[in-house]
Amino acid sequence: MDGAAALPLDELLARLGPAGVVPGAAVPPAQWSDWSGEAGERPLVQLRPASTEEVAWALRWCHARRLPVVPQGGRTGLAGGAALRAGAVALSLERMAVIDWIDPVVRLLQVQAGATLQQVHDAAEAAGLAFGVDLGARGSCQVGGAVSTNAGGHGVLQHGMMREQVLGLEVVLADGEVLPMLRPMPKNNTGVDLKHLFIGAEGTLGIVTRALLRLHPRAEARATALLALHDYAQAPALLAALQARLPGAVAAFELMWRDFLEAALDWRGGPPPFAALPPLCALVDVQGPRADVQAALQQALEAAFAEGLADDAVLAHTEAQARALWRLREATAEFPARLHDPVNFDVALPMRRIGDFAEACLQALDADVPGHRSLRFGHVGDGNLHLSTDGASVLGRRERVEQVVYAQVAAFEGSVSAEHGIGLHKKAWLALSRSPAELAAMRRLKQALDPLGLMNPGKLLDAADPGSLQG
Amino acid sequence: MDGAAALPLDELLARLGPAGVVPGAAVPPAQWSDWSGEAGERPLVQLRPASTEEVAWALRWCHARRLPVVPQGGRTGLAGGAALRAGAVALSLERMAVIDWIDPVVRLLQVQAGATLQQVHDAAEAAGLAFGVDLGARGSCQVGGAVSTNAGGHGVLQHGMMREQVLGLEVVLADGEVLPMLRPMPKNNTGVDLKHLFIGAEGTLGIVTRALLRLHPRAEARATALLALHDYAQAPALLAALQARLPGAVAAFELMWRDFLEAALDWRGGPPPFAALPPLCALVDVQGPRADVQAALQQALEAAFAEGLADDAVLAHTEAQARALWRLREATAEFPARLHDPVNFDVALPMRRIGDFAEACLQALDADVPGHRSLRFGHVGDGNLHLSTDGASVLGRRERVEQVVYAQVAAFEGSVSAEHGIGLHKKAWLALSRSPAELAAMRRLKQALDPLGLMNPGKLLDAADPGSLQG
Repeated sequence: MDGAAALPLDELLARLGPAGVVPGAAVPPAQWSDWSGEAGERPLVQLRPASTEEVAWALRWCHARRLPVVPQGGRTGLAGGAALRAGAVALSLERMAVIDWIDPVVRLLQVQAGATLQQVHDAAEAAGLAFGVDLGARGSCQVGGAVSTNAGGHGVLQHGMMREQVLGLEVVLADGEVLPMLRPMPKNNTGVDLKHLFIGAEGTLGIVTRALLRLHPRAEARATALLALHDYAQAPALLAALQARLPGAVAAFELMWRDFLEAALDWRGGPPPFAALPPLCALVDVQGPRADVQAALQQALEAAFAEGLADDAVLAHTEAQARALWRLREATAEFPARLHDPVNFDVALPMRRIGDFAEACLQALDADVPGHRSLRFGHVGDGNLHLSTDGASVLGRRERVEQVVYAQVAAFEGSVSAEHGIGLHKKAWLALSRSPAELAAMRRLKQALDPLGLMNPGKLLDAADPGSLQG
Repeated sequence: MDGAAALPLDELLARLGPAGVVPGAAVPPAQWSDWSGEAGERPLVQLRPASTEEVAWALRWCHARRLPVVPQGGRTGLAGGAALRAGAVALSLERMAVIDWIDPVVRLLQVQAGATLQQVHDAAEAAGLAFGVDLGARGSCQVGGAVSTNAGGHGVLQHGMMREQVLGLEVVLADGEVLPMLRPMPKNNTGVDLKHLFIGAEGTLGIVTRALLRLHPRAEARATALLALHDYAQAPALLAALQARLPGAVAAFELMWRDFLEAALDWRGGPPPFAALPPLCALVDVQGPRADVQAALQQALEAAFAEGLADDAVLAHTEAQARALWRLREATAEFPARLHDPVNFDVALPMRRIGDFAEACLQALDADVPGHRSLRFGHVGDGNLHLSTDGASVLGRRERVEQVVYAQVAAFEGSVSAEHGIGLHKKAWLALSRSPAELAAMRRLKQALDPLGLMNPGKLLDAADPGSLQG
């Protein structure tokens, strides 16, 4: 089967209705891939089921015809997990975008997978609560995609990744079997907790159709400070001291290296936060009761100074001052305008080693890719470092930049993907962060749940190598 | 092969040494099962490997001979997961009891699976930190068992179950393959997070040999109060109000029904906490800074009264008063002396429905098993209810008690096991809490990772029914 012509569209239309079927020829190229820039191809057809039953029917239908299925959420992924390929069926859950229920007392919300993260935030806020995962794409990205990529973003330090927000899932397997895992109970030791298989599996094991999500009490107030550090070794100790003094309250611990700070000040103007720019700045947000969050942070910072964990600090006394401090970190919004097609990294390292890693990367890039311009920053409180290299500074040498940085990730026993996932983009590097035994086990799971290899094929892992199935 | 005589003990001794091999005849009957009371049988041999490499060798050796392997931790399980059967190899990790390292700054600890929970607590405390899971059997139960049963106990409300403490695992599969999943990074989106498969799998998918565990800042102080409620509906709202006012600080929310309170007062003496015993009491622990935890709890309670969420309260002003309040809840320690061989339940329900469930259970038991004496209490903040029926009050009708209570669990869409697991004890009831599709998926996973069915066979699920593998 290699074209829409061969597809019995009438069967699809009869079951899913005209709103549920978009012929391949009518799917606009903008929908063939995601924000990763990975190339996509025209699908056979796009299916838009409106219920779990329709998803199950659609998957059974594809299964019977051995048609590969590529699920797409809001197509905001950065690793190419939603890139279509010719001959595949695109599956959109856009028509399943309802919040089934919210219970502010037990702080739970059940939602269909096609709803956006924004909808979840809005519903939580309307109930006087907060949702734990937030990210720039919140208005477009969908719950199903956020679960399937185990999204991170802001809030991880306090509330964990998407996985930690998920109390239950409803999932449809490749053969159309529905797994109803939505009982709203935090304690439920009745065998393997299957939902974890699908969180971060990037749609390769099944389709998430519903999520039961935890909500959190809303913070009354925030206090923000920017701290100057002379040595990375101060950072983990500073974070630990703040967390011990303000339990559960540290909501952000973002680190910016001097290369990033210089660019941010250059692009966004404004007075430098410190007379002399330090080698590193930590941006800290603390949540707490309105009455004393500011005083609590100030006390914690004074203790940190006394212990030599920071050299200087700017404490925001107004909302406007807090926003000004965040403007530095949010200079990443200037990347599209200021960095030509940058090479972006999203890596994780053991917390203690991030400083050495950042230094080693710079030295290796200086040696191997002279002239590169690289900026270092990240959610370092989560062990997550972003490094971006200006594409204009490494023209024709982009691959070399990747080789150099990922070699350092391997040397430091880090993760090639902290929060964005593998998709197509990082398949080549996956083996640097997972042992052959782990990859073989992932293939066994794939074989167990999707023996025909129809779910998002070619993403994350290549199809099973029969040899490796023997373990 | 049906006896130790057929076993080439010399091969085992040559590789594992005399400390690593106990012939079946020398394994005392006390080690054939666990605290569940399930019957065990003499094993072929008990293997006691001293390293991951020896575990891997032992499993390869058993795999080559098609010998079933039953892992045993501290044998404190309450569901029979560690009960031995004739013809099986017993695997003990008692000789792997070392804490590999602890890092108080990043608050992580790596430990071999044979270490006790007490060792973990001691190491955390010595570093000025706390471990999140605690339970009565801490001195005997082992980390591997606590991971494999996803242990609960005290602390779940604040820190989650054992699963939430686990950042990484090292696991040996049935065929001896080692999965090294110990990279100390909270963010690591590189495919399926395999460790979750083994948490709560009760040793049916592989042997946990090491765990990388999260630690928490130690609470400076606790405040304790006992609250009188006239209606269960107050309980979820009371908990939500306390958690909103004291974010992250509510460490215990234990509920006791009047039947339990009367027994506790009868057994342990002392003055009743309230002039008239209310239908329900909630025991609340809050953690916080020494200076103001008491005042913070008092304020929160006053707000709760104003909202009608509690009717009366006793706030402990001294350690001794707090202990006196906890003595009521800890009257469970009297069960062995006061209840004749009780029928114990460990069920979970959606938080909103626990009150109706508790009432429905009592009515159903009154109707079907007249004369029963049942006590109701539990970690209700976690959705977990314990119900214990005096065996003497239901002589010859124990099975009927189970049928009645589990029928209510099914009707209320609860879990037949909140924290103890399934083992042998609850296999018959598992299908009340998991759909056929979920059970089939669990069987597919078992088939994928242990196709010969050698890991703790007969526990949790029966061997795959070929029909159900088709999904």
